[in-house]
Amino acid sequence: MSYSTTRRNVLRGTVATAALTATATAARTEAAHAAPRSGGTGPNIGILLYDGYSLLDPTGPAEILSRLPDATVTMIGEQRGAVRTDTADVAVVADRSIAEVDRLDVLLVPGAGNRGTVGAMNNQPLLRWIREMHRHTQWTTSVCTGSIVLAAAGLLNGREATTYWASADYLQTTFDVSYVPQRYVRSGKVITAAGVSAGVDMALYLASLLADDDTAQAIQLAIEYDPQPPFDSGNASDASPRMKERALQLLAASQV
Amino acid sequence: MSYSTTRRNVLRGTVATAALTATATAARTEAAHAAPRSGGTGPNIGILLYDGYSLLDPTGPAEILSRLPDATVTMIGEQRGAVRTDTADVAVVADRSIAEVDRLDVLLVPGAGNRGTVGAMNNQPLLRWIREMHRHTQWTTSVCTGSIVLAAAGLLNGREATTYWASADYLQTTFDVSYVPQRYVRSGKVITAAGVSAGVDMALYLASLLADDDTAQAIQLAIEYDPQPPFDSGNASDASPRMKERALQLLAASQV
Repeated sequence: MSYSTTRRNVLRGTVATAALTATATAARTEAAHAAPRSGGTGPNIGILLYDGYSLLDPTGPAEILSRLPDATVTMIGEQRGAVRTDTADVAVVADRSIAEVDRLDVLLVPGAGNRGTVGAMNNQPLLRWIREMHRHTQWTTSVCTGSIVLAAAGLLNGREATTYWASADYLQTTFDVSYVPQRYVRSGKVITAAGVSAGVDMALYLASLLADDDTAQAIQLAIEYDPQPPFDSGNASDASPRMKERALQLLAASQV
Repeated sequence: MSYSTTRRNVLRGTVATAALTATATAARTEAAHAAPRSGGTGPNIGILLYDGYSLLDPTGPAEILSRLPDATVTMIGEQRGAVRTDTADVAVVADRSIAEVDRLDVLLVPGAGNRGTVGAMNNQPLLRWIREMHRHTQWTTSVCTGSIVLAAAGLLNGREATTYWASADYLQTTFDVSYVPQRYVRSGKVITAAGVSAGVDMALYLASLLADDDTAQAIQLAIEYDPQPPFDSGNASDASPRMKERALQLLAASQV
């Protein structure tokens, strides 16, 4: 049995834009294997990957921001190539090195486990590049402990910010930052998000700033983001000390 | 200025498990660049990547499932190497080819745009591999239009299942499947999730089945999954026809 898009579209409503001639299909297939799009007229969005990041921190926002009209989303690493997560289970490809990127409309710095965060905090070329990008960004953003990396780069001095719940004390006592326990916090052109999954909420907010509310709402529908977690245990301020300890143990045990 | 984990841990509570001697650090750093862990005593979880998948479909669940005690999460492709998303903006590395994997405790099949879904539905070696894995899995799962790929492989005959909201009609009319408009649907050992972000909710449910509720709740806290989207537009049954059309237009325009 064979299935054809000319006979029926799997996604209703895409017929108009997906007129699949043989030529167009070939062009699309080739494009799918090539480097990311560039020269778009929309925002130029760069997501930094560094050794030991948490997988959802860059990929949740990328899923959302790549739906913005004419946006370009690029994964950027110290060098081009695969960059592994904190668990080492998964690698995402950095399609550009920091040396190849000298201007971004939006910078997003993901968080990481302890090893990755401390590594990034002590990586002077990386911090220098973050500072250089920040000079010209429209928005400089972070997810989870990415805000600690922004702080280490000197970008959060005197600002309000959020971070991963277990890192709030470290952020406040190490840097001149006021921790605000919100899902995301905007301070000037800097937007920080809370832990891991908070990047999805922040990215929708960012989408509304880069485009408009209607576009952000359409993207939310496009990714069917109508969250219905089977449990209600994601808020640290409601969690027992035992549950917090268990969460941190699972994290530590899963990380390399 | 330099930051050290021996002085203070960025993530509170990780001190006990993260005793960083020079040797251990070196071992960890090496491991982070190596292939994924194997030989774990926990579930052997395989996530299939195929050309044109949607980024959050595999990565959201991977973030969660990789926190399960002793779990192994492996990204699997037709061949080893980078596999690009529907927008071509991002590539995740398949660390194993389907030829290298002959047994899984859990299989997860992500969804894709129109091109990717139809491509997978017509890919007989891929469908054959899915059927072979399914014979021995504990759980066979999907996200978004991944359920259509499972259906094309013949695994949903006579079952209840869910899928991406815009693909529900296609699923029901093309296959012997009863569409159930829920965030995720369990039918025997098959669990299907709704669109894109629903994989996160499904993965937490799956974590509770693979371990227990307490572990799943701790993982939810570990990824701070306390969703607070800035809008309430993610449920298709509440969306206007205009908003649905806009969502599908954004999807089509972002896809290669």
